[in-house]
Amino acid sequence: MTHTLVLLRHGESEWNAKNLFTGWVDVDLTEKGRAEAVRGGELLVEAGLLPDIVHTSLQRRAITTAHLSLDAADRHWIPVKRSWRLNERHYGALQGKDKKQTLAEFGEEQFMLWRRSFDTPPPPLDDSSEFSQASDPRYADLGDELPRTECLKDVIARFLPWWEAEIVPDLRSGQTVLVAAHGNSLRALVKHLDGISDEDIAGLNIPTGMPLVYRLDDDMRPTVVGGEYLDPEAAAAAAAAVANQGR
Amino acid sequence: MTHTLVLLRHGESEWNAKNLFTGWVDVDLTEKGRAEAVRGGELLVEAGLLPDIVHTSLQRRAITTAHLSLDAADRHWIPVKRSWRLNERHYGALQGKDKKQTLAEFGEEQFMLWRRSFDTPPPPLDDSSEFSQASDPRYADLGDELPRTECLKDVIARFLPWWEAEIVPDLRSGQTVLVAAHGNSLRALVKHLDGISDEDIAGLNIPTGMPLVYRLDDDMRPTVVGGEYLDPEAAAAAAAAVANQGR
Repeated sequence: MTHTLVLLRHGESEWNAKNLFTGWVDVDLTEKGRAEAVRGGELLVEAGLLPDIVHTSLQRRAITTAHLSLDAADRHWIPVKRSWRLNERHYGALQGKDKKQTLAEFGEEQFMLWRRSFDTPPPPLDDSSEFSQASDPRYADLGDELPRTECLKDVIARFLPWWEAEIVPDLRSGQTVLVAAHGNSLRALVKHLDGISDEDIAGLNIPTGMPLVYRLDDDMRPTVVGGEYLDPEAAAAAAAAVANQGR
Repeated sequence: MTHTLVLLRHGESEWNAKNLFTGWVDVDLTEKGRAEAVRGGELLVEAGLLPDIVHTSLQRRAITTAHLSLDAADRHWIPVKRSWRLNERHYGALQGKDKKQTLAEFGEEQFMLWRRSFDTPPPPLDDSSEFSQASDPRYADLGDELPRTECLKDVIARFLPWWEAEIVPDLRSGQTVLVAAHGNSLRALVKHLDGISDEDIAGLNIPTGMPLVYRLDDDMRPTVVGGEYLDPEAAAAAAAAVANQGR
């Protein structure tokens, strides 16, 4: 018996559209992003993939994407679990900055290092910044665990405990699990599932609003490496567009 | 120390607007209903009443109301619990019927008996009806507990176990609890909280989209009988309109 995991990156956000680094800043979806979320739910129905439980980050763009896609799939009533461990990568001092401007200011090498390096985080964000989450009530319990910046390695370190403790048991109980999260928190999970190297993960992009399905064996290894997009052609085109951000 | 409970009836639904008996039929909100839900969230912010956890029914109009009002209050990220025990009263064979037409067909006495009698349910709904939930996957685990019709007494009997087992512990742990539910499931709870008699509950109507706040003592008794609406004038006008449905 295989276990069914569906990954869904939130639809286009206001800051995706403005080409700003977002990270933990809690921006909303655009109208296009809402439509993507609804389409994601319709794709689930067409594929006969009906989630039994949903896991989301604590961020509006993932929470609303989950709500809209599950509503479109007539699964709005399933149980919900939320955790900061599914949040987008914290982008440190880059949060709120224009991607194109950052590229021009710091050059291609530094830009790509911050965007895609496995273990080099951007400079930390000061707690006094308007883009800081240091006084956000939803993270009040985190204490010293609250990130001020993160590289992908950091995201993996805080995501995997949730994977092991919450998502894997839901999968083992036979439930189809939807994870509604973010570009980098889903890259962290995919790297783990597919055993992608620290170097190769730099080239992997996950498009917005496109359900990505993994069938996992009892050791939680994918039966198809890389999983399967429900709309593979649209996913390939969208992933290429993500890779070109900042150009 | 008092415990803070906020009750929120969903905003106007498509069948509220069409004046049909809805019950367990899973209709959506109207645009007006969505606006009411957002306004409900704004009222919470203005009152400084920020929910720490939300309980919803398994029905779209309550789930979406919770999502929209919490999003407007910047509390979209709080934990969610859902249960069929918070659902609207099952209206039996009246589900899908026009209220005005039912009044004309059966007369004032029978109509008000079905609508407001404490212990007389409407005739049961046949499982073959298009308005039945007998094959709805969200209720698959209920077995013999799945209602085919309910009176308010029945709603109280299935709501109170959830109140005792799930909501009261959340209140006792110091959390501000939002309950996003329905006209009759909230009437069931209010009857219990305020100790309203089986006769007097007939006259109590709860308007859509208006947060009703109860401060409860350690015995879970209200410090103010009837609670307090955050917008009392609008609530009084809206409750009068509910009472006149079918006229």
